[in-house]
Order: sequence, then structure tokens, then C-alpha cells
Amino acid sequence: MPPETTTTSRRSRLTPERERELYEAVVDLLREVGYEALTMDAVAARTRSSKATLYRQWKGKPELVATALRQCKPISPADIDTGSLAGDLHELVRLHDESEVKRDQELMRGLSHAAFQNVELFRALRELLIEPELASFAELVQRAVDRGELAVDNPARAFVPHMVFGGALTRPIIEGIDPDPEYSHRYIDAVVVPALGLS
Amino acid sequence: MPPETTTTSRRSRLTPERERELYEAVVDLLREVGYEALTMDAVAARTRSSKATLYRQWKGKPELVATALRQCKPISPADIDTGSLAGDLHELVRLHDESEVKRDQELMRGLSHAAFQNVELFRALRELLIEPELASFAELVQRAVDRGELAVDNPARAFVPHMVFGGALTRPIIEGIDPDPEYSHRYIDAVVVPALGLS
Repeated sequence: MPPETTTTSRRSRLTPERERELYEAVVDLLREVGYEALTMDAVAARTRSSKATLYRQWKGKPELVATALRQCKPISPADIDTGSLAGDLHELVRLHDESEVKRDQELMRGLSHAAFQNVELFRALRELLIEPELASFAELVQRAVDRGELAVDNPARAFVPHMVFGGALTRPIIEGIDPDPEYSHRYIDAVVVPALGLS
Repeated sequence: MPPETTTTSRRSRLTPERERELYEAVVDLLREVGYEALTMDAVAARTRSSKATLYRQWKGKPELVATALRQCKPISPADIDTGSLAGDLHELVRLHDESEVKRDQELMRGLSHAAFQNVELFRALRELLIEPELASFAELVQRAVDRGELAVDNPARAFVPHMVFGGALTRPIIEGIDPDPEYSHRYIDAVVVPALGLS
């Protein structure tokens, strides 16, 4: 059963369109004011909802923010299927570049700062955003195993997300600039492909 | 000329012992209160110096903090020389584990948070801490090229620091736990060694 079905049944008071609208408003607010300054009052005002509805449906601000980010993600790695693992990773970069990635880098940076100071946010982001995202990513990797492209016991197999996200995360620190598509494609070819023994 | 010589001549009013004491006090204060709350007044009081001396010698808080972190670093990658690149990287992990790495992870997390909100700190950290550290790391990699262990045009060569630091940076986000030596050694063998085509 896809996660959307569970979400809808759990939150049956809102139509999918209304939910979508609400998630987008939360992400817009996050971009405008950051996590710390975002209030449930502001979300309620922006979306013309009652705070009671927001708390009933999402429990609290950390859960609402993490769910909104997950639902507004434009790309699901599991949906990418080019026929090779290297091709899938390059396609992931390409799709990411088409989305609003520049604004998202600022957003995710602010959010990761907040997460290391706020244990509820850290937990909500891991449970509602990162773990589902990693599960989707694991499907993409599993297909390479199923195709016989990657050995089940390849020691780098468990580290595909670390490699992919690590290349992006370290560039600002090491080179002083944000990753761009040219960099990400180069990193995949220079690091991820040989580490996995792909050709 | 080693960087220490330059430092001493530029800051000739303080003995190396006094400088060392001052740097350690700055790092202690950073651990206690974080970058934002650290004041030059507090550094002056803790080290029984005048604020005028601090500003004359280090220009400002970002430069003082970045220099103190650099000078208090227990390990210089260029000094490691086990005879193989894989050996050097494992030795780096081992030496790091002997130092006060657990406290440093908290410290560097807080600092990277501050650096993305404060352009002077970001610049000072890059110039006075990260770039010298990367230069030292590049010496370690260059020795592998000189030994014939690594081809000059190996595409992963420029990404050794990204791989090493990326593995550590992504673990808390992806697995929810900080890196430990077992993890770091495993990451080197599973990712860095094959990406570089070492055996």
C-alpha cells in the first residue's frame, strides 16, 4: 500500500487537494521565516485552518513540518528506472536540478541546524522524511542487485546514500561553493561508480 | 617555511607558550558557551589579556576562533606516513579516535551552524582552518601519487577529502548516530579504497 493511502485514511477530514495546499503553505512559510520562527498560528492563518485541526491531524509542529517536506518532495528515487544504477543516479541529479533545488539547499541547511538543537524535530525528520526517503532510495539500489549489476555482499552497497549525499554536503565546506549538476555528475562518475565496481 | 614560523613572527608580542595557553582557553570557552555567546571580553578575562592585545594580534573574534581551532588540532595529516594511502587514512582515524573527538563533534556542529549565518566566520574558518587542513591532507595524497600508488589523473583523487569527511558528516543524518572508529575504518575500506582503485 502506498504511503499516500495511509496518510489519507489517517487524515480523512481533509481532501487530498486541501492537504497538498496546506503542505505547500508550510514549506513556503519555512522558506520565509525558518523553522524556529514558524508558528502553528501562522500556518493556521495562512491556510485558513483552525489550530485545533492542525494539532489533531499532525500532532505538532515538528511532525507537520517533516510531513510537509516529504509530501512536497518533487522526486521519489524508487520511481527512477533507467536500467542501470549509474544511469539512475545521474537521472536523480538531473531531476533534482529541474526542481527548486537552490532554494531547497538554504531551507535544508536551516532545518538541519534546527534539528540538531531540537530533539523532537530531529526525530520527526528522521521518521517522516529521511527514513521514507532512504527506503525509496534502497528500492533503486535493490533493483541493481536484482539485475545482477551489484553483488548482494558488495561492501559499498550500504553506503550509496552516504556517498551521494556526502558529495553534496561536503562541497560547501571543502570548496566553499554549493554543489551544482556538473559537480554532482562528476562525483557520481569519479567516486560512486568505481566504489561500487560498476563500469 | 612552516606556518608556525609565520605565526610567531606576526604575533611576536606573545611567547609560543602564552599563545598556546590562549588558544586552549578560546577552545574551552567555545565548548562551554558556543560561538555566538563567546565574547572577546570573556576571552580577555579568562586569559588575563587586554582586549586591545587580542584585537591587535587576531583582528577579530572570527579570526581568533579559527586560528585557535587550527592550532589546537592534535593531528596534522601530512605528518602521517605509513607507506600506503589506505594505511595513512586508517591511521588518521586511529589518531583521531585517541584525541577528544567526541567533544569536537558537538563543537564543530555548533560552529558550522554559526558559519552559515555569519560570513566573516565562514571566511575565517575557510582561510585559517579548512584550507591549511586541506593542504596538509593534499600532501598525504600527493605522497601516494609520488609512490606510484595513485595515478595523477585518477578522477577520484580530487575527492579524497570529500569522501573521508562525507562519510562522517552523513552518518548522523542517514543512520541517526555519530561516526565511531569502527564505522570510519569500514567506510574507508568499502568506499574510499575501491573508489581510488587501491587494493
